[in-house]
Amino acid sequence: MGKSYQVVIIGGGPAGLTAGLYSARSRCNTLLIEKGIIGGQITNAERVENYPGFPEGIQGIRLGQLIHEQATGYGLEILSAEVIGAVPSARHNLVSTGEGDFTCESIIIASGAQYRRLGVPGEDEFVGRGVSYCATCDGPLFKGKTVAIVGGGDAAVTEALYLSKFATSVKVIHRRSELRASKVVQERALAEPKIDFVWDSVVTRIEGDKAVEQLVLKSTKDDRISVLEVGGVFVAVGSEPNSAQWRGLLPLDEGGYIITNELMETSLPGIFAAGDVRHNSARQVITAAGDGATAAVSAARFLSH
Amino acid sequence: MGKSYQVVIIGGGPAGLTAGLYSARSRCNTLLIEKGIIGGQITNAERVENYPGFPEGIQGIRLGQLIHEQATGYGLEILSAEVIGAVPSARHNLVSTGEGDFTCESIIIASGAQYRRLGVPGEDEFVGRGVSYCATCDGPLFKGKTVAIVGGGDAAVTEALYLSKFATSVKVIHRRSELRASKVVQERALAEPKIDFVWDSVVTRIEGDKAVEQLVLKSTKDDRISVLEVGGVFVAVGSEPNSAQWRGLLPLDEGGYIITNELMETSLPGIFAAGDVRHNSARQVITAAGDGATAAVSAARFLSH
Repeated sequence: MGKSYQVVIIGGGPAGLTAGLYSARSRCNTLLIEKGIIGGQITNAERVENYPGFPEGIQGIRLGQLIHEQATGYGLEILSAEVIGAVPSARHNLVSTGEGDFTCESIIIASGAQYRRLGVPGEDEFVGRGVSYCATCDGPLFKGKTVAIVGGGDAAVTEALYLSKFATSVKVIHRRSELRASKVVQERALAEPKIDFVWDSVVTRIEGDKAVEQLVLKSTKDDRISVLEVGGVFVAVGSEPNSAQWRGLLPLDEGGYIITNELMETSLPGIFAAGDVRHNSARQVITAAGDGATAAVSAARFLSH
Repeated sequence: MGKSYQVVIIGGGPAGLTAGLYSARSRCNTLLIEKGIIGGQITNAERVENYPGFPEGIQGIRLGQLIHEQATGYGLEILSAEVIGAVPSARHNLVSTGEGDFTCESIIIASGAQYRRLGVPGEDEFVGRGVSYCATCDGPLFKGKTVAIVGGGDAAVTEALYLSKFATSVKVIHRRSELRASKVVQERALAEPKIDFVWDSVVTRIEGDKAVEQLVLKSTKDDRISVLEVGGVFVAVGSEPNSAQWRGLLPLDEGGYIITNELMETSLPGIFAAGDVRHNSARQVITAAGDGATAAVSAARFLSH
């Protein structure tokens, strides 16, 4: 049996780091486990404009570093390893990693989620330079431009409406000839003069020089190729939480997100979830950080009772 | 009838300001109403150590200014006025203030809460210099000191346990000869060698030079006066949310806090609550800010449906 902790945090994005900051500052013996880069998804953000306290915006990777520095300053221990399994058990939970096993009284799951990618040439290359997965985060950067949004669900159409407040023109690219979005949202989008629909089409390539300039589209009906000039493209084809190892152990929603209440409690005492991995997260840096603090306060209360 | 907004936010602390930042950045026509100082309760904090992103800590009033600057930079409108009443009505809510009436589609209530004060000489004078109302916020500042905590409920005893991790000695001052705290918390506190109880006593005066040095106590049994030397005093005699005008309109918990789900939705469509005024808030700057962002995202979704 490996080392024992009061709290083990899985994930080193804003939710996990803030949980770690709070837990370590409360003098709970805490280990944070992160398999990749500390900071999580925000390390991809060229500039985070909506994290309160930074009116000029801040580079995502820098914000991650600052929170990391603050948390380790209070004694947070960090392990670079992948979590390969967990066995919940009242106050003696087991967390297995590639670097050994750990027992703990409480677990905070802050393993995040990934936006589904299109998987086309140019997509990875232009992330942060015209390719975005979050309209709330990046919409205002596209003021006065033509933008495309790829997808046909509620999220895609709601984001199209949102983007129409900034962009001069919004092109919704959908592989089918009708939307999956709910009726009322559809009607609003169809009535919005700035929004056009490009039906029966998929993006096969994202092109540009320094930033996105055009999309290569292919018809899903007759394979015809066309080109659409845009200043940016929002990909809204869904997302996947990093929650596979909790299936069967904790209640998940239909998308695989972990269900919590507003105290970040899951259905198992001592097991909490925070940030993008949980159901109904607003998926913003500030909400993830808030979740992390709430989860740590809840965990500390659990430990003292 | 006065001016009309899409969103009216009541309260200009971290929850309200962050809601305003998000709502204005989403180009929702938004008014924030604050009766006192912008920044709310944090303006009293000499240094906020646990707001993620500021490893060196930041003065509370400065953090408030930064978020204020960021929110108004996105076009948030702010009115200095007291809200005197509200009449919810589907998408036509009325908010009355000393400076006129406003209608709005959505309301975000972020009016905060107040810690109950002892109301003794020296208390106001030494806030931030030895007098504190929040162990989670300020506990680590009292490392190696003797501190007192005033109160006998669950919060007081839980905070005493928390403070025992930092302080060399914790004196719990209670006006009765037994605690109201739950059994299990009591037992842990009674078993903690660093914690002593001062029964049947009330604080009548807080004294010191530059910071708190001693408390004057009076026995509730025989009025005898005694002096207790301490490096700080935590007041844990309860708190009161600023929610009076919502009584009868929204479900409140027994303490008067507004009940929400994890989307910050109250029971009325279009009415949201965020930060310290809501039930089960962790009452931290970061959790209030996270709540505010979530409420604004929820309000924007409400407006688009």
